[in-house]
Amino acid sequence: MPFDGEIFSGSDVLVTGGLGFIGSSLARRLVALGAKITLVDSLIPEYGGNLFNIHDIRDRVAVNIADVRDPHAIASLVKGRNFLFNLAGQTSHLDSMTDPLTDLNINAAAQLHILEACRLHNPDVKIVFASTRQVYGRPQYLPVDEKHPVDPVDVNGINKLAGEWYHLLYHRVYKIRACALRLTNTYGPGMRVKDARQTFLGVWVRQLIEGKPIQVFGSGGQQRDFNFIDDVVDALLRAAAGAASDGQVFNLGNNEHISLRELAELLVRLNRGGRYEIVPFPADREAIDIGDYYSDFSKIQTALGWSPKISLPDGLAQTLEYYKQHRAHYWDSAS
Amino acid sequence: MPFDGEIFSGSDVLVTGGLGFIGSSLARRLVALGAKITLVDSLIPEYGGNLFNIHDIRDRVAVNIADVRDPHAIASLVKGRNFLFNLAGQTSHLDSMTDPLTDLNINAAAQLHILEACRLHNPDVKIVFASTRQVYGRPQYLPVDEKHPVDPVDVNGINKLAGEWYHLLYHRVYKIRACALRLTNTYGPGMRVKDARQTFLGVWVRQLIEGKPIQVFGSGGQQRDFNFIDDVVDALLRAAAGAASDGQVFNLGNNEHISLRELAELLVRLNRGGRYEIVPFPADREAIDIGDYYSDFSKIQTALGWSPKISLPDGLAQTLEYYKQHRAHYWDSAS
Repeated sequence: MPFDGEIFSGSDVLVTGGLGFIGSSLARRLVALGAKITLVDSLIPEYGGNLFNIHDIRDRVAVNIADVRDPHAIASLVKGRNFLFNLAGQTSHLDSMTDPLTDLNINAAAQLHILEACRLHNPDVKIVFASTRQVYGRPQYLPVDEKHPVDPVDVNGINKLAGEWYHLLYHRVYKIRACALRLTNTYGPGMRVKDARQTFLGVWVRQLIEGKPIQVFGSGGQQRDFNFIDDVVDALLRAAAGAASDGQVFNLGNNEHISLRELAELLVRLNRGGRYEIVPFPADREAIDIGDYYSDFSKIQTALGWSPKISLPDGLAQTLEYYKQHRAHYWDSAS
Repeated sequence: MPFDGEIFSGSDVLVTGGLGFIGSSLARRLVALGAKITLVDSLIPEYGGNLFNIHDIRDRVAVNIADVRDPHAIASLVKGRNFLFNLAGQTSHLDSMTDPLTDLNINAAAQLHILEACRLHNPDVKIVFASTRQVYGRPQYLPVDEKHPVDPVDVNGINKLAGEWYHLLYHRVYKIRACALRLTNTYGPGMRVKDARQTFLGVWVRQLIEGKPIQVFGSGGQQRDFNFIDDVVDALLRAAAGAASDGQVFNLGNNEHISLRELAELLVRLNRGGRYEIVPFPADREAIDIGDYYSDFSKIQTALGWSPKISLPDGLAQTLEYYKQHRAHYWDSAS
């Protein structure tokens, strides 16, 4: 089912994490759909916000620098919006272990503040929350559907689940029209590539472009599924547009899954050059690794007509091209 | 299997929430077992701490007034302990909805601080965390075992689950010897009876003693199971004593379950007087009610040899007797 997104024309949209990878891509699509957009971002250097992400739409969106942990700013910002795409988060699994309280403050406490602000100041807003497949922990079966037990293996997974559940609870108790998408590996132009805080694939792309070997941890046999950013944006819009999503949680995912070693091989092939190496798992990563993972996304397919459209080779090629062209804006070559 | 508790003789024990209902009862038993005990409590009036709870053992325990949200106090207090019974919590479901951030700070953030303190300053401590059946939400089947999906219906349930999971995670990743007991309705001498913040049964006991009708919400048909405080203390000690509990979560519970209406009838009978009335559910309670609940506790029975020993009529009779004698210390008759 094609999605026209007409509902967003002239609508007032707030995006937390709006200068990040997903937020900025969503903003680009919303601009095209004629929405009035405000992007909230803290621009904390360790997180995903990057003003270059909106260089082509800078004059067609409002940017508000604020931290979602600032309840007063948030209370003011949620007023009058038709849609809230709640994407701000601390995404690094390792950082969540070394600094668990910061992860909690962003991924759980700030979410409660945001929901309280909506309950008090804008109870009619529709909220789409970006959750994560990390809430499932190590899969007990594959593909993982939404009925799979939740059993997070790191602090990030625990706090993201709390953040997600607050949203569903505020729907159940207060009828706030909130829903959550459990994202798997999202990749594409605009992702953080400086380090692995957002996705390991970002670092791989950078390593390849820099002519360094891609480092594949462990056996390289771990299965993963990936969604190209445009497909994730499409899912966010569909979730926001329909009442069928209210109070629901949906997996994203891809029927095309691949081992990390095969992914490295594919990247090298698409790059027409480069290499990868299999290296032992760093102990801190191994302790929280989830093994194989890929999703069953039939629930969102049935309810909202979403399925991923961009193949992995196509998406990776677009991604490599983007970072070859714009590398100066995403990492310091000297580092 | 009888439990001798010899392991606690001469041991250094810290109890958070130590002046509360469960903490003080545990302390009494630990005093008898020859442990060296420090009770930490904030004595916040809305919570369970009450110095009268330890009136008979006041000179045999150390009391340290501090809030578990004070990370510096906690870091200092965990040092050198053999056992940490981590019982401090915000228990009111309604308060968690009206003041969700306070619930989060106590039931989640403070738990992370406590675990970080143990990791950094006392990684060999054994921790028993008091979790709650509230993490399951509305039962999908009965009796509820530990494999039942978790699906909290209020902010308290979400935050308690986060707090519990941090404990299990710190075992998994850092080998901290932590475990969690998911308590069902605990009752007995020392429980809060001023209001329903800790347990509705406290209010019922007070209403009965004051000669007022017990108020039963809804149909009165809701099934519940109950554990007398001495049985819960026994479970806490067994969980602390053995390595079999490390990294595990256990339900408490009771094969004796009863509807709320039957419970009210039983109380009236034991009291040899009084009455109850069926009243409509207040809307705020109904929104987060869990329907019928009782536990399958066979996991802890098999692993640690625990099962409840005190029958409901026996436990309730002891409870009524206690509050008739000591009411002045638990509520202001004028209120």
